Amino acid sequence: MNTAATLSQLFAGIQNDLDRVDTTFQERAASGLTILHSASMHALASPGKRLRTAITLLSGKLNTYHFEKLLPLSVAFEMTHLATLIHDDIVDEARTRRGNPTVNALWGDKIAILLGDYYFAKTAGLIADIEDHRIDHLFSDTVATVCEGTIMEMMTAGSVDLTIDAYYEKIKHKTACLIAACSKGGAILSNASDEEIELLYEYGLNLGIAFQIIDDILDYTEDQATIGKPAGNDLRQHMVTLPLIYALQEQPQNGQYQQVSQLLSGEPQKEPDVRSIVEWVAHGQGVKRAQMDALIYGRKAREALYHFPASPHRDVMDELIDFVVARKK
Amino acid sequence: MNTAATLSQLFAGIQNDLDRVDTTFQERAASGLTILHSASMHALASPGKRLRTAITLLSGKLNTYHFEKLLPLSVAFEMTHLATLIHDDIVDEARTRRGNPTVNALWGDKIAILLGDYYFAKTAGLIADIEDHRIDHLFSDTVATVCEGTIMEMMTAGSVDLTIDAYYEKIKHKTACLIAACSKGGAILSNASDEEIELLYEYGLNLGIAFQIIDDILDYTEDQATIGKPAGNDLRQHMVTLPLIYALQEQPQNGQYQQVSQLLSGEPQKEPDVRSIVEWVAHGQGVKRAQMDALIYGRKAREALYHFPASPHRDVMDELIDFVVARKK
Repeated sequence: MNTAATLSQLFAGIQNDLDRVDTTFQERAASGLTILHSASMHALASPGKRLRTAITLLSGKLNTYHFEKLLPLSVAFEMTHLATLIHDDIVDEARTRRGNPTVNALWGDKIAILLGDYYFAKTAGLIADIEDHRIDHLFSDTVATVCEGTIMEMMTAGSVDLTIDAYYEKIKHKTACLIAACSKGGAILSNASDEEIELLYEYGLNLGIAFQIIDDILDYTEDQATIGKPAGNDLRQHMVTLPLIYALQEQPQNGQYQQVSQLLSGEPQKEPDVRSIVEWVAHGQGVKRAQMDALIYGRKAREALYHFPASPHRDVMDELIDFVVARKK
Repeated sequence: MNTAATLSQLFAGIQNDLDRVDTTFQERAASGLTILHSASMHALASPGKRLRTAITLLSGKLNTYHFEKLLPLSVAFEMTHLATLIHDDIVDEARTRRGNPTVNALWGDKIAILLGDYYFAKTAGLIADIEDHRIDHLFSDTVATVCEGTIMEMMTAGSVDLTIDAYYEKIKHKTACLIAACSKGGAILSNASDEEIELLYEYGLNLGIAFQIIDDILDYTEDQATIGKPAGNDLRQHMVTLPLIYALQEQPQNGQYQQVSQLLSGEPQKEPDVRSIVEWVAHGQGVKRAQMDALIYGRKAREALYHFPASPHRDVMDELIDFVVARKK
């Protein structure tokens, strides 16, 4: 399955508006300072799936669509997401992202810190353009939560006994809350009722959780050619994710537990050991059970969505759940 | 002269409100995450001069004083300032600030990056509380400008031929624009006229320039006991500031030019060489001419201020100029 084509087919109805968000992002990410401008243009040259923008716009389509309000909101969310990725790459000492060199790899940590800060400053201006104080607070709370999520991720790294609850707490903060803010923000700016705002928040939160679980699965099942990094990257960085937790729960007494524990404790890694753990998680119960969880959260997102009357845009949001859960990269 | 006592005498009339800003800062800088909370409380435990808050409040006092609006604005500006200091300390690899260990020294670069980001997120919430879109834009523009200033500072480090214009451009972006935003924001929130808003912006901008010039002078004239870092710190970090530019202009042909040039180019530093340059700048024309400039900018700040009718609060803002220019730490 060519997932990229599928996603662009799925978003055909909002393609023009997606493109306008891209253009505005480029304009607002510009700087008069050459080095900052170059780093900024490099950072946004390898766009992601534009999932956050699509969710914002589609949520708006379920009620009264005000693109002129959704435009700055979408740019602000994409820019926040990019700022956190840039700072994450410093924290993780990552040299590549999506197959391209990171900002810190090309310009060093200092410029990468400042480019992220610059984006945070710029998002404040975008949010101000919307002139809706509910959005101001949604935005501030979301960014603070994402920061806390990043710290949770750092603090739980290397923890072989990470609980499933702690894993979910971490991914809700780090990933799902921003996607939930997209659908909630889209709802707020399209005159949705309080109940509809809450339902779209639930849609985004559960979709975001499913998205992150799949991301964590793909880290075990995919290779460099597909996701732009070698399988087992999380494990190498001592990140404990759902597939690993389930794999360890399944066979807590076997030799792998000891092996994983040593790997996570920071002992020098032997590449064959890493690969054997990755194989064990990928082909055993770890990935299978994590996939079940992703399906459950996909279903929760669908339940929230089905409170809205059937419409072509609701259909797209429905298919998006399937896309997120079935995606291969 | 005990400058600290002088400053607290100067601010006696707004002391209660300054204290309330401190308390609210502590409340808003809290986090449910232990490590983030500890780092945050450490960062704000060594407060600066609270100059930004005082300027915000005093500017408000010149018109109709609305403390409930000025409170979140002051906290947001102090928090922004602290966030930029925390990120600066990573960029500069600084181990101490005001005699205390930096966040990066105690918790590492990762937590320091995230604490700064967390503060940026929190400031967005504070600004949202004010519910005034002029403030939203002022804030966003100011933070973006400060980021650009930090990059200008980085990019001009090591440049023996830095012009006076480029120096002023750098300090306007890095320091003065935030102080100008304090006085302008104070004016906006106290129902000042457009002309008064502009005048108070001029007051803050020129005071901020004078403040930074004096900071750069003190780096040559003061020692560790007084400013918490050894004299010549800027020079050691290859920062070219006004006293050095003037010293080099004064005697461009002498041996010092060559010596400074080598120092700035990153050649290994010999401590006696650094000290001899510091002495030459401190006791020659470099510092003298920079002091003249600081006086000129102080005068510009005063000219803007004197468009307001005489009042006890105007007197404080007037004396604050003298304090800033005469301060010894």
